Amino acid sequence: MNYGKEKIGIYRTYASPLENVRTIPESSFDGRDNTLLGLDVRVRLEGDEFFKNFEEADNSNLVATDSMKNFVQYQLGEYDGATVEGFLDFTGRRFLEQYSQIDAIQMSADQIPFDELDVPTGDGDFEPSELVFRVSDNESGFGEVYLTRGDDGPQIEEQNSGITDLQLVKVKGSAFTDYVQDEHTTLPEREDRTLYVSMDIFWNYEDPEDCLGEEPQRYVASEQVRDIAHVMFDEVYSRSIQDLIYQIGLRVLERFPQLESVNFEANNQTWIAVREEIDGDEDVRVLREPARPTGYQQFSMNRDDLDEE
Amino acid sequence: MNYGKEKIGIYRTYASPLENVRTIPESSFDGRDNTLLGLDVRVRLEGDEFFKNFEEADNSNLVATDSMKNFVQYQLGEYDGATVEGFLDFTGRRFLEQYSQIDAIQMSADQIPFDELDVPTGDGDFEPSELVFRVSDNESGFGEVYLTRGDDGPQIEEQNSGITDLQLVKVKGSAFTDYVQDEHTTLPEREDRTLYVSMDIFWNYEDPEDCLGEEPQRYVASEQVRDIAHVMFDEVYSRSIQDLIYQIGLRVLERFPQLESVNFEANNQTWIAVREEIDGDEDVRVLREPARPTGYQQFSMNRDDLDEE
Amino acid sequence: MNYGKEKIGIYRTYASPLENVRTIPESSFDGRDNTLLGLDVRVRLEGDEFFKNFEEADNSNLVATDSMKNFVQYQLGEYDGATVEGFLDFTGRRFLEQYSQIDAIQMSADQIPFDELDVPTGDGDFEPSELVFRVSDNESGFGEVYLTRGDDGPQIEEQNSGITDLQLVKVKGSAFTDYVQDEHTTLPEREDRTLYVSMDIFWNYEDPEDCLGEEPQRYVASEQVRDIAHVMFDEVYSRSIQDLIYQIGLRVLERFPQLESVNFEANNQTWIAVREEIDGDEDVRVLREPARPTGYQQFSMNRDDLDEE
Amino acid sequence: MNYGKEKIGIYRTYASPLENVRTIPESSFDGRDNTLLGLDVRVRLEGDEFFKNFEEADNSNLVATDSMKNFVQYQLGEYDGATVEGFLDFTGRRFLEQYSQIDAIQMSADQIPFDELDVPTGDGDFEPSELVFRVSDNESGFGEVYLTRGDDGPQIEEQNSGITDLQLVKVKGSAFTDYVQDEHTTLPEREDRTLYVSMDIFWNYEDPEDCLGEEPQRYVASEQVRDIAHVMFDEVYSRSIQDLIYQIGLRVLERFPQLESVNFEANNQTWIAVREEIDGDEDVRVLREPARPTGYQQFSMNRDDLDEE
Repeated sequence: MNYGKEKIGIYRTYASPLENVRTIPESSFDGRDNTLLGLDVRVRLEGDEFFKNFEEADNSNLVATDSMKNFVQYQLGEYDGATVEGFLDFTGRRFLEQYSQIDAIQMSADQIPFDELDVPTGDGDFEPSELVFRVSDNESGFGEVYLTRGDDGPQIEEQNSGITDLQLVKVKGSAFTDYVQDEHTTLPEREDRTLYVSMDIFWNYEDPEDCLGEEPQRYVASEQVRDIAHVMFDEVYSRSIQDLIYQIGLRVLERFPQLESVNFEANNQTWIAVREEIDGDEDVRVLREPARPTGYQQFSMNRDDLDEE
Repeated sequence: MNYGKEKIGIYRTYASPLENVRTIPESSFDGRDNTLLGLDVRVRLEGDEFFKNFEEADNSNLVATDSMKNFVQYQLGEYDGATVEGFLDFTGRRFLEQYSQIDAIQMSADQIPFDELDVPTGDGDFEPSELVFRVSDNESGFGEVYLTRGDDGPQIEEQNSGITDLQLVKVKGSAFTDYVQDEHTTLPEREDRTLYVSMDIFWNYEDPEDCLGEEPQRYVASEQVRDIAHVMFDEVYSRSIQDLIYQIGLRVLERFPQLESVNFEANNQTWIAVREEIDGDEDVRVLREPARPTGYQQFSMNRDDLDEE
Repeated sequence: MNYGKEKIGIYRTYASPLENVRTIPESSFDGRDNTLLGLDVRVRLEGDEFFKNFEEADNSNLVATDSMKNFVQYQLGEYDGATVEGFLDFTGRRFLEQYSQIDAIQMSADQIPFDELDVPTGDGDFEPSELVFRVSDNESGFGEVYLTRGDDGPQIEEQNSGITDLQLVKVKGSAFTDYVQDEHTTLPEREDRTLYVSMDIFWNYEDPEDCLGEEPQRYVASEQVRDIAHVMFDEVYSRSIQDLIYQIGLRVLERFPQLESVNFEANNQTWIAVREEIDGDEDVRVLREPARPTGYQQFSMNRDDLDEE
Repeated sequence: MNYGKEKIGIYRTYASPLENVRTIPESSFDGRDNTLLGLDVRVRLEGDEFFKNFEEADNSNLVATDSMKNFVQYQLGEYDGATVEGFLDFTGRRFLEQYSQIDAIQMSADQIPFDELDVPTGDGDFEPSELVFRVSDNESGFGEVYLTRGDDGPQIEEQNSGITDLQLVKVKGSAFTDYVQDEHTTLPEREDRTLYVSMDIFWNYEDPEDCLGEEPQRYVASEQVRDIAHVMFDEVYSRSIQDLIYQIGLRVLERFPQLESVNFEANNQTWIAVREEIDGDEDVRVLREPARPTGYQQFSMNRDDLDEE
């Protein structure tokens, strides 16, 4: 049993910048200004004492979900850190302090992405505007912490970080062949297909506290994992989506030794070729959208996978 | 690790009718013609042998998800039963028979609802058309089975049935008062609110085989649970959504002794009054939509809850 | 140039019932209780004086769109009629009275449908609940009026009424053959297909005032047009969607001599057969969803079309 | 009357690059590689001869919408230009050539945007991948041509180009004050608000042929209009959305003398402040999402507006 509030869309202007992130070869990312920090938050409360709300229609310890929303809004003004996970942990701890009837709390959020936009500097060059941003519907960061009451106060019992809805297409250089052929198989084998895959990637730290960003050198930014994904897609001639995500996972674990595991949910959205070898050039194609059914892969990897290689 | 296919939308004309369902006082439902049976299916395969698809880029035992789609389509023509769960079990067993590399399979589906539509009989009366149906976007049945390989062949290890996206509003006769009041509380208490709640309700049978509908007297139709939900909403003066779903759950368990548990996910979509007591009548109101944040409750009940009452 | 507010979702409890509607053979509809009246309203203001908002950044005559929302909400409490169009006309006139800078106003709304739900009467029978309703996502009524300032005050210059998102499927008894065959044709001809069509139907009255419902005998309820649509679909063996909507249009104009024209937007969502003649029965099929591209037809008919028949 | 096909999602690899576009001070855009060209196409046929499809159920001249889809797919392989509008014109002309029963054709498309993604060059620097792209859900180009049969063959009778779903937020530096205050006004005046506006911008050329891109120096790229929009938003301290879009429109007409008019549909999605002046800094705020109703502005400007300034 649990209850809570979801779709709490909140925005903070001039939050603390994320700085001193350790850079990796696959990404130019080294921090975020956080001029705008946007979050779509979900709160979930657990507590044995809440059973009486159900069984006895007794609301006396019931925190209205409307009040939860107000609580979360207020804390975004109080938080002086720079990460999604840090804010969730900060707010979860305050919930546990304020309401003794809560045994455990899960706080999760999608980060609402704001893209920098170039404006002219006056001398013919361009630089990012300090005031105007694009509200993006593309991939976004994700964070989740699950806090319980420990002997020394609230503690992170579980943590999850991620980047979701990454949509990538590779024009050529992906194969899919040699799979099971039987009376139910109609898909043609392809040595070279235009592969379009959407992905959610999640990661867990060995020490959950590292997710908070208080030591930026130990923080894994979702932009960095995003960049590893498309760099590996660019580098690798993949034999399947399974092959591709395995290569991405290995690279993520290699770059970030502070991580324990990385998890994928991939969806295949590959278009279907309707004309090929146009004007004799095998790379020139016309493709169409597939019908709706979507193949997917869910896969978890940990350090053992890395060691085997 | 698992992989599969989702959003397989399939339709069967003239499937076997569901008949001889045991009726309950809350519902006039006693069967379905199944002139049209529509399903949105998800297949999930598990198997240790699939690891080599990821780790060795070896596709030799990989069943393409496109082939899974073909397989499911084919089996809907073969199935001669009358229920969603029955079809999922039937198809899952055939997957296990055909592909030895599968260790376990989860099959789930949303039922696509078709409403009967009245046409004139010619003598001034109306009866349901035998040919034309409304494709409905309202609440729909849900089924899921998880099959593993047992000593005597495939067996249902887990089962879940449900009705999802039930959207109900009660004009008057719902309260929400006496909850926690503190500095984060701004929601006014209401002795009488126009309560709008959307619900997913799921149930599990003591004996999973009962979900297949082979013994219709032991089958729980999603239409029956739907009807219990709105009948209880009509009957009960609820003190909270928690109170309401508890009352619904008790009634479901009382009517269907073959069930082990019933589970709820409820979302509060209640409108906000902007004018009240219009022309001096306290029941006459103008209301508006709430902002996006949505309170929710997740709750599980089993027979022990029933016995306590 | 115009500006306004859209997506104003408003709800009224215990609005005036719609009664004394003239019945037609295709429909059992004879009125609505309006215990709940829900509308999704759009307001559009026109006026030359508003140009200075743009060109001079002068807001002095600018009615904030937030105030428009408040205005519409307020008027739903004042309106004592029973129809969507009546409410839009009522509110539009009040806008014109209140703000002299408005030259013309378009008010439109989708009606949010609430379905009756049966509850037991206690003697084994069922009747509609007076309190609990399903919030439906299926087809809904539509209304629009365009008001200008005439010599005698506000007048309806244009009017449009409709029913939108009607989704109908006919299991068998629809053909599509004898169309153009050339090198771009791959669609197979079908003497009998399972036809799935979604439709928006709109109608215009000869006298726009008839749309208000003040004379219920001259009002055309969207439920009646809805019922004509599926009754004709049931009756007619159609040769194409074009043929089908023409037959529906003729019947609508025949039943309602107060209408000047009827207009259609139809979308073809027909499934694709993947197995046919299952067990030797030509009516038993398995079908799948089509890929996304959707054929459509837009067609207007007036009384001349009826006279030609 | 018309009919056609919509949602034709098609993709071309290695289309001709768009080069030699005239640059403007507000934008670094000077061309597109078109390694991937994606379009969501809508075809609409008009022709008096099609009436017999409706009135006589005679399909003999009916081009199946499925065939239209095939036709459009095929032509994307034939087209050797570089613009959306060019492809629509090219394909529309071929429709008119192939089918004499068509009197006029409207072809329109949303461009599906693909973002470049940086990969490491090996020497510590980054450059765009030539193979991997992000499929973006953000703003996209739009094109439309309406072709009729003229004395000298097909001609463009109307043309429309645009950029749609531009979502921009400005952290500070936007006012909204001095509007009408009356009993329906509850919105507080703001000297400084965080303004979030989404926009569709459309433009028409004096000479419709300029939209085709055959003379790139006379082509207006949607990326350039996009960049003018956010540069003006950055530059201007706006008094209202009306004021803002007027300033954008003036700049567009100034930069592109080949345009006759520019049209806007703007939607106000501004968040609502829940905490302000945090830690005494007036720029630091917490904001929340507004409820659903959305104010909008529709506005057209032509060269006369520019001359007045």
